[in-house]
Amino acid sequence: MYESGLVDAVMIATPHYDHPPEARKAFAAGLHVLIEKPAGVYTKQVRQMNEAAAASGRKFGIVYNQRMNPLYVKLRELIASGELGEIRRTNWIITNWYRSQAYYDSGSWRATWAGEGGGVLINQCPHQLDLWQWTIGMMPSRIRAFCHFGKHRDIEVEDDVTAYVEYPNGATGVFVTTTGEAPGTNRFEVSGDRGKIVVENGNMQFWRLRESEREFNKRNHVPFAAPECWKVELPPFGRSPEHVGIMQNFTDAIRHGTPLVAPGEEGIRGLSISNAMHLSTWLDDWVDLPFDEDLYERELNRRIAGSRHSKRAELQSAAPVDLSGTH
Amino acid sequence: MYESGLVDAVMIATPHYDHPPEARKAFAAGLHVLIEKPAGVYTKQVRQMNEAAAASGRKFGIVYNQRMNPLYVKLRELIASGELGEIRRTNWIITNWYRSQAYYDSGSWRATWAGEGGGVLINQCPHQLDLWQWTIGMMPSRIRAFCHFGKHRDIEVEDDVTAYVEYPNGATGVFVTTTGEAPGTNRFEVSGDRGKIVVENGNMQFWRLRESEREFNKRNHVPFAAPECWKVELPPFGRSPEHVGIMQNFTDAIRHGTPLVAPGEEGIRGLSISNAMHLSTWLDDWVDLPFDEDLYERELNRRIAGSRHSKRAELQSAAPVDLSGTH
Repeated sequence: MYESGLVDAVMIATPHYDHPPEARKAFAAGLHVLIEKPAGVYTKQVRQMNEAAAASGRKFGIVYNQRMNPLYVKLRELIASGELGEIRRTNWIITNWYRSQAYYDSGSWRATWAGEGGGVLINQCPHQLDLWQWTIGMMPSRIRAFCHFGKHRDIEVEDDVTAYVEYPNGATGVFVTTTGEAPGTNRFEVSGDRGKIVVENGNMQFWRLRESEREFNKRNHVPFAAPECWKVELPPFGRSPEHVGIMQNFTDAIRHGTPLVAPGEEGIRGLSISNAMHLSTWLDDWVDLPFDEDLYERELNRRIAGSRHSKRAELQSAAPVDLSGTH
Repeated sequence: MYESGLVDAVMIATPHYDHPPEARKAFAAGLHVLIEKPAGVYTKQVRQMNEAAAASGRKFGIVYNQRMNPLYVKLRELIASGELGEIRRTNWIITNWYRSQAYYDSGSWRATWAGEGGGVLINQCPHQLDLWQWTIGMMPSRIRAFCHFGKHRDIEVEDDVTAYVEYPNGATGVFVTTTGEAPGTNRFEVSGDRGKIVVENGNMQFWRLRESEREFNKRNHVPFAAPECWKVELPPFGRSPEHVGIMQNFTDAIRHGTPLVAPGEEGIRGLSISNAMHLSTWLDDWVDLPFDEDLYERELNRRIAGSRHSKRAELQSAAPVDLSGTH
């Protein structure tokens, strides 16, 4: 198909491991590419894909449809424009990914190192891992993560994660996720020098300081005083165009040169955080970003070698699954 | 006064370091003792105080007035009675302790190793550190903490903390606190095998699964199904009697043998968590509980030796401070 001359662009929605090699084939054939998330399973293969994309000069997008969500668009815009001041702390509790054993048993490739290359971080969380850095415009500089593998379910990969991060400016953050809890939480809190924003239950709450905390602290002489804080009501948010929006934006980029909302090259960011969380757990130590990609690949390969998943098992698993509840 | 024969009981509200030695003097004189929080600065001195209390046979209480708060009383009761099932995760964001530099400058003993023996953990958080374990009925088994010392203010001690904990049953938890943010958050989330409770803004939100997640998972065969979840409205909560309640309970214990809501011996629990958070940061490593108390004391003493606070400085700081906003 790539070489048929009948298509200008492809959307790659294969299993995770195959995103980078398929994309590279498509770029080699001069096609534009839109890949599903995650960009790949390990950053080394994704870096090679990014290089192929750059060399091809074709459009390269990733289906980060949550970047179309007006809540996160507004959060990013408020932060980029300085309304929240310098970022001090992020905290994302994203535990509403309930998956029963029946879900994991529905495909032998699921939740295996050989089949998926990870668990809740690689399958359920790519959107949040992307938004976590995209909204604040900052990647962590180091990570100390605590992944639990097969804690709630009979699986090989992580189904429960708590991670602590530090950013280059001294800010700190926490990311908590699991597929084992019901009912979960989806709450993203960001605090800065000028206030705090909480995105939860499809709403945004915004508290804004009248002056920056730093300025207040400098001039204040009253021991228990605090800066004046406003609870701000924002105008109503519209609906999120989600996948339709991403597809339209990709088409517009090809046809009219419109900037991509989710350039494919940025898929490596969330994946770097995800890989670093695995690596920190495996090493039981800090991981600085950027991390040693060869080391990650070696550690992953050790787990793939011991994985219960094999090609034979994959062929046996042919039962169709209702995917209507997934993303 | 202890030996005067004129008093039956004393309340000790001295600086933190002096709680244990003063309590021991009072017990030696045969008095009942109610101490302010924290129980002391390091667990070794608190353990000695607890032994003196036990040997004296007198009543020993601690001013954990938040144990009188009907929200936390109800949380504890719901968990103890099994309504939430086995605990899976705790998450407390307690960052609404805004303190400006003017606060820290109001007393030279404040926020010093020699004067206070710690920062936000020892001064602002003792209630939450106690409630964190009291409500769920479980102490962490190990802690990995990330304290930042003098991050937001010109002080020696911690003013910004993120800690990850693991419990004996495999549950995990996060505790985040700071005095540097405005407006902060006070949100305590607990999830269990039977649902989730969030205490925030003086309210409790309670989601209860109709059957335990474990039982559901065992019998379920539908990949994307989840257990039926009820949002439960609890009857209104009354006001918290706080300090008045603690004082009355202490008096009732002496006069009528009423069980203490906050036995003094339990002060060591929250302090153990606090000490372990310091120690984990200083060692940049895990700390198992119970930890090496002599090691903690040695590490603390090194910091006291280098502390900017001295007795001379204390004498110079005589300016009265309006404490109406504190606890």
